[in-house]
Amino acid sequence: MKLAVLGGDQRQVFMVRRLAEAGHEVFVWGLGACGGEVGDARVCEGWDAAVRASDAVILPLPVSLDGVRVHCPLQSEDVFLRIPALLDVVGDRLLLGGRFTDAMRGVAEQKGGRWIDYFESEVLQLKNALPTAEAAISIAMHELPVTLDGSAVAVLGFGRIGSLLAEKLHGLGARVTVFARRSEQLALAALHHHAAARLGCKEGSTVAESLPARCRVIFNTVPQRILGVDQLKRLPKNCLLIDLASAPGGVDHNAAAKLGLKSIWATALPGRCTPESAGLILADVIEEILSALE
Amino acid sequence: MKLAVLGGDQRQVFMVRRLAEAGHEVFVWGLGACGGEVGDARVCEGWDAAVRASDAVILPLPVSLDGVRVHCPLQSEDVFLRIPALLDVVGDRLLLGGRFTDAMRGVAEQKGGRWIDYFESEVLQLKNALPTAEAAISIAMHELPVTLDGSAVAVLGFGRIGSLLAEKLHGLGARVTVFARRSEQLALAALHHHAAARLGCKEGSTVAESLPARCRVIFNTVPQRILGVDQLKRLPKNCLLIDLASAPGGVDHNAAAKLGLKSIWATALPGRCTPESAGLILADVIEEILSALE
Amino acid sequence: MKLAVLGGDQRQVFMVRRLAEAGHEVFVWGLGACGGEVGDARVCEGWDAAVRASDAVILPLPVSLDGVRVHCPLQSEDVFLRIPALLDVVGDRLLLGGRFTDAMRGVAEQKGGRWIDYFESEVLQLKNALPTAEAAISIAMHELPVTLDGSAVAVLGFGRIGSLLAEKLHGLGARVTVFARRSEQLALAALHHHAAARLGCKEGSTVAESLPARCRVIFNTVPQRILGVDQLKRLPKNCLLIDLASAPGGVDHNAAAKLGLKSIWATALPGRCTPESAGLILADVIEEILSALE
Amino acid sequence: MKLAVLGGDQRQVFMVRRLAEAGHEVFVWGLGACGGEVGDARVCEGWDAAVRASDAVILPLPVSLDGVRVHCPLQSEDVFLRIPALLDVVGDRLLLGGRFTDAMRGVAEQKGGRWIDYFESEVLQLKNALPTAEAAISIAMHELPVTLDGSAVAVLGFGRIGSLLAEKLHGLGARVTVFARRSEQLALAALHHHAAARLGCKEGSTVAESLPARCRVIFNTVPQRILGVDQLKRLPKNCLLIDLASAPGGVDHNAAAKLGLKSIWATALPGRCTPESAGLILADVIEEILSALE
Repeated sequence: MKLAVLGGDQRQVFMVRRLAEAGHEVFVWGLGACGGEVGDARVCEGWDAAVRASDAVILPLPVSLDGVRVHCPLQSEDVFLRIPALLDVVGDRLLLGGRFTDAMRGVAEQKGGRWIDYFESEVLQLKNALPTAEAAISIAMHELPVTLDGSAVAVLGFGRIGSLLAEKLHGLGARVTVFARRSEQLALAALHHHAAARLGCKEGSTVAESLPARCRVIFNTVPQRILGVDQLKRLPKNCLLIDLASAPGGVDHNAAAKLGLKSIWATALPGRCTPESAGLILADVIEEILSALE
Repeated sequence: MKLAVLGGDQRQVFMVRRLAEAGHEVFVWGLGACGGEVGDARVCEGWDAAVRASDAVILPLPVSLDGVRVHCPLQSEDVFLRIPALLDVVGDRLLLGGRFTDAMRGVAEQKGGRWIDYFESEVLQLKNALPTAEAAISIAMHELPVTLDGSAVAVLGFGRIGSLLAEKLHGLGARVTVFARRSEQLALAALHHHAAARLGCKEGSTVAESLPARCRVIFNTVPQRILGVDQLKRLPKNCLLIDLASAPGGVDHNAAAKLGLKSIWATALPGRCTPESAGLILADVIEEILSALE
Repeated sequence: MKLAVLGGDQRQVFMVRRLAEAGHEVFVWGLGACGGEVGDARVCEGWDAAVRASDAVILPLPVSLDGVRVHCPLQSEDVFLRIPALLDVVGDRLLLGGRFTDAMRGVAEQKGGRWIDYFESEVLQLKNALPTAEAAISIAMHELPVTLDGSAVAVLGFGRIGSLLAEKLHGLGARVTVFARRSEQLALAALHHHAAARLGCKEGSTVAESLPARCRVIFNTVPQRILGVDQLKRLPKNCLLIDLASAPGGVDHNAAAKLGLKSIWATALPGRCTPESAGLILADVIEEILSALE
Repeated sequence: MKLAVLGGDQRQVFMVRRLAEAGHEVFVWGLGACGGEVGDARVCEGWDAAVRASDAVILPLPVSLDGVRVHCPLQSEDVFLRIPALLDVVGDRLLLGGRFTDAMRGVAEQKGGRWIDYFESEVLQLKNALPTAEAAISIAMHELPVTLDGSAVAVLGFGRIGSLLAEKLHGLGARVTVFARRSEQLALAALHHHAAARLGCKEGSTVAESLPARCRVIFNTVPQRILGVDQLKRLPKNCLLIDLASAPGGVDHNAAAKLGLKSIWATALPGRCTPESAGLILADVIEEILSALE
C-alpha cells in the first residue's frame, strides 16, 4: 500500500522504517531530518505531496496537542500543518490516527472521510502494556536504594498493565501484593503467586491497611484517586509511589510531596522510554488494521 | 558483641543499623552526621573511643583508597584516620575490613593483630551478584530505546554474576546468548534455557561471530580484554556494551568510543546503586564471620 | 453457619474438613466411613437429620449423574438419596450444588427453594484451571519419552486453562505455540513469550500447518472438534494428544486411534488427580458465596 | 567416524539414530529388532563384525550388570557377549562405556586398549540432571492429592540435581525449602528465592525441625542416610518422600514403610522415564568426547 506518514516523534521514525521494510511505499513529512533513519521511505518536502501520493494517511499519537495542528515535535516551530487544511487534501483517503478529538471527528465526517482511531485498538493497548511495565520497573530500580529482588511491593489494579507488571516483578524476585476490586481478579492474582487484597470495596478497607510490611514501592495503574492524603499519611516514609494512571492519576502527588513521600507520575512511558519498541508496535497495529480492511 | 565501625559510605550506615538491630552494641565513627539513621548504635566523637569500647573493629570496603587513610567519604576532608595510628590502638582486637592491601597486612601482622578480609568471603561475592545483576539490568533498561523483553542480548562469562544476570534477563523475556569457556558452563547455560556459545577457545572463534542477530546489549563479566578493537569493529552500531568486570575490564572502551559504540564501564554497582541492600549484605556476612568465630 | 453436606467424593471430604476448620458447624451424610478425615464435622446417620440441623445444604459436583439420585460414590450402592425426597425436607433452606440439571431447577423452583449453582462461579472456574493445568502436565510427563523441557508443544485455546497451562509449560522450558482465534489472545500470548498462531479463521489455515517442527504434544482446551481426521493425518506420529475439553471434545479420538496417534481425553482432572486441592477450592468458593449473602 | 554400538536399552536406540544423523557410520549389535528405529545405522548379525567395521566401540550405561556380560536387555536371554571375548576383538580400538568396573579396567589395560568412562563426564551428569529433576516432579505430581503449586516442599542437597529441581519446583509455584551443608549453597539458594536451612552441621539440627509447615514432599538428593527412623518419626504423615540418591540412599525406606510414610526410591530416572532424551544426551556427550580427541 501507499502510505503517507505526517508528523509524530521518534516512534514514527521507527514505525516508518518497519512499514517500509514490510513492503509498503511510504511517503514521510514532518519528522525533521530523519532521512538516514527511515530506510526506503521517501521524505517529502510538502505534506500535500505526501498525501496525494498515498492511499492512506497516518497521523501520530496523539494526532494533535492543541486540537488545531498535527503534532510535529521533530519539526522546527515555524513549520506546521493545520488539520482543516489537511482534511481538504485527504478527501476520501483512509485516515489513521491516535486519539482524535471529537471536533476532529466532526470535521472529518462532514468531509466524508473514513477515520480509524488506532489508539482504541485493544491489541495496541495490550502490546503497550509491555513497554509500560518495563519502564515502571526501570524507574523503580533507578530510584530505590534496595534491590527489587526481595523487596515488598504493591500493584494497584490488575488489568492489562497491572497484571503484566506484577508478573514481571514476581519474576525479578519482588514480593508482590496485588490490590484489585473483583473476586475474579483476586483469584487470577493468586494463580500467578501474588498475595492479593481487596481494593476499597467496604468502608474502612484501605490500601494502607493491607499493605505488606516494609512495602518499598506502590505501583498504581487505576485511573482513580486511590491514594489521597488520608491514605498517604499512613504509608512508610521510604515507600516510593509510581503512578502509571492517566489523568486524574491515582495519587495525590501534592499531598505526597508535603508528606515527604517520593512520588512519580509516569505516563506515556512507551514513547518516552522505548520509542523504538513503541514505533514497532504502532507499525504492527497499523499493519493489522490495514490487512483487516482488505 | 561490641563492635566499632570506622569510616565507609552509605552502605556502612545501613550495615550499622542492621548490626544494632541484631543485638550488637555498635560504636560508630567516620560516617558523618548519620545520627538519625543508625538506630541504637552510638556515634562517637573520636575514633579511638570507639575502638577502645569494642571487641572487634570493622573497616569499610575498600579499607582505604590511598593505602594510608581509612576511606571516610561521608566525613569532611580535614577529618581523617591514619591506618598506622589506628593499628596502635586496635592492638589485639579482631580487625575486619574489605580489600586490605599487602602493606596493611604486613603492618598489622607486625603488631600481632588478627585480620579478616571479608571481601574474600565467597558468600559476600555470591550475595553481591544480586545487586550487581539488577543494576546492570537497570542500566540497560535506561539506555535502550527498546524493551529488554524480546531483545537479543549476550552475556560474556557464566560465573556468579553472569549466571544470575542471564537468568534474570531470561525471566524478563530477553533472548539470551551466554558465552563461556568451559563445557560444563555451556551445559549449565543450556539447562537454564540460554543459547550458548564457546568463548574464544580456538583461533578465529570470536564473540562477534557467534553473536545473536540484532544483538542489542553485550554484558561482559570476564575480567579480561575480550572485546578489543577487532571485535568491536564487527558489532552492530546500536549494540550497547555494559562492562561489569573489574580492572582491566573486558572492553576497550576508548576504541568503542571511536567506533561510535556506546559502552559503559559499570563497577562497584552494589554500593553505588543499592547502598541499602549492599549494607545489609555486609551486615549479614559480618554476622556470619563473627558467629563462626564463637 | 450450620451446613449440611450430602454426598460427593473425596473432594467433599477435604471440603468438609476445611469448612469445619473455618468455624462452620457441618453435618455430613453420604461420604462413607469418612469419620476420621472430616475433623470436627459431625457424621449423621440419616440425610434428613443433617438437613434439619442446617441452614444451608451443599450438594456435590455434579449434583447427580442420573438426574434422580444425589451422586454418592463413597456410599455402598444400596444407600441413595432421591432428589425429590430431598427437596421436600430442604424446604426454604439455601441449596448449593454443582451442575443442577434443568429438571432439578424446575422442581426446586416449584417448591420455592433458593438455588445457587456454584459450578457457574467464575472464581471456581479460574481456581480449577490450576489443578487442571498441573494434571495435564503430569499426564504429558508420564507419557512422553522426552522431557517437556526443550520439547515443542502446542496449546489450542487461550482462555483460563489454556493461558495458565501455556505459562506453566513455558516455565518448565517447553517451547510453546499457542493457537487462538482472536487477535487480543494472540497479542496476550506473545506478551507471555509464546509463539502464537491464528486458529482456523480462514479457509486452509489449519493447526497442522502452523504446528512447530517436531511438536511432541498438543494440548486442546477448545470444546469444539478442531482435530478431525484430516488434521490428524498430517500430525507427526509421535505427537501426543491431550484433550482437556468437555464433550464433544476437540479431538476425534477414534480417528486418532486408527491413525496410530496416542490421544488421551482427560476431563474432570481436579477431582480425579488432586481431590484435596479440588476440595479446598470448593470450600473457598462456597465460603465466598455464603459470605456474599450475609 | 565409524562407531560400533553394542548392547544397551531404549536409550541406545535413540543414541544410535542421533549419531547416524550427525554423519557417523554406525554399526549396531545387541539392541534387538530395532531396525526401523535406528535410521541409517546398520544392524549387524554378529558383534564381532560390528567391532571390526569400526574405529571406536561404544558400550552401554552401565556396561554390565554382572561384571561378565555386556548389558543387553533388548536381546533374548540366550544371546550374550562376554567382556573378555569382546576385548580380544576390540584390540587397540577406542572403547567407550559407562561405569566400567575395576576388573574390566584391569583386563582392558592388560590388553593395551584405550578406555573412556563417559559416566564420569561432568557434562553428562549436568545434562542428566534435567530428566532426573523432571521425572522427580512427575512422580510427585502423580502421587500427591494436592497440586505442587502452593504446596510446601523440601529439597535436601543443592548440587546439580537439587538446584535444578528446586528451581523447577519454584517455577511451578511450590514453596521450596532447600537444605544444604555449606554457606555458599545456602546463599545461592537464597539468590534463587528459596527458603534455606542448614543441613545437619550441629548436634540437634535436624531436617524435621526446619521443615516448612505442612510440608508435602521431601526430595532427597544427598547420597547419605539423612532421614533415619528418628527423623522419620517426626514427619507429618501425609509427607511424601522421594529419594533420588544412589545407594545407600538418603532415606530408611523400611522404617518409613513401618511408620506409614509413603517413600519412593527413584533412581536411574533418565533412562527409565525419558529414554529418548537420555539417549540424545548420551549421543551429545559421546560426540563431544570424540571431537575433543581429534
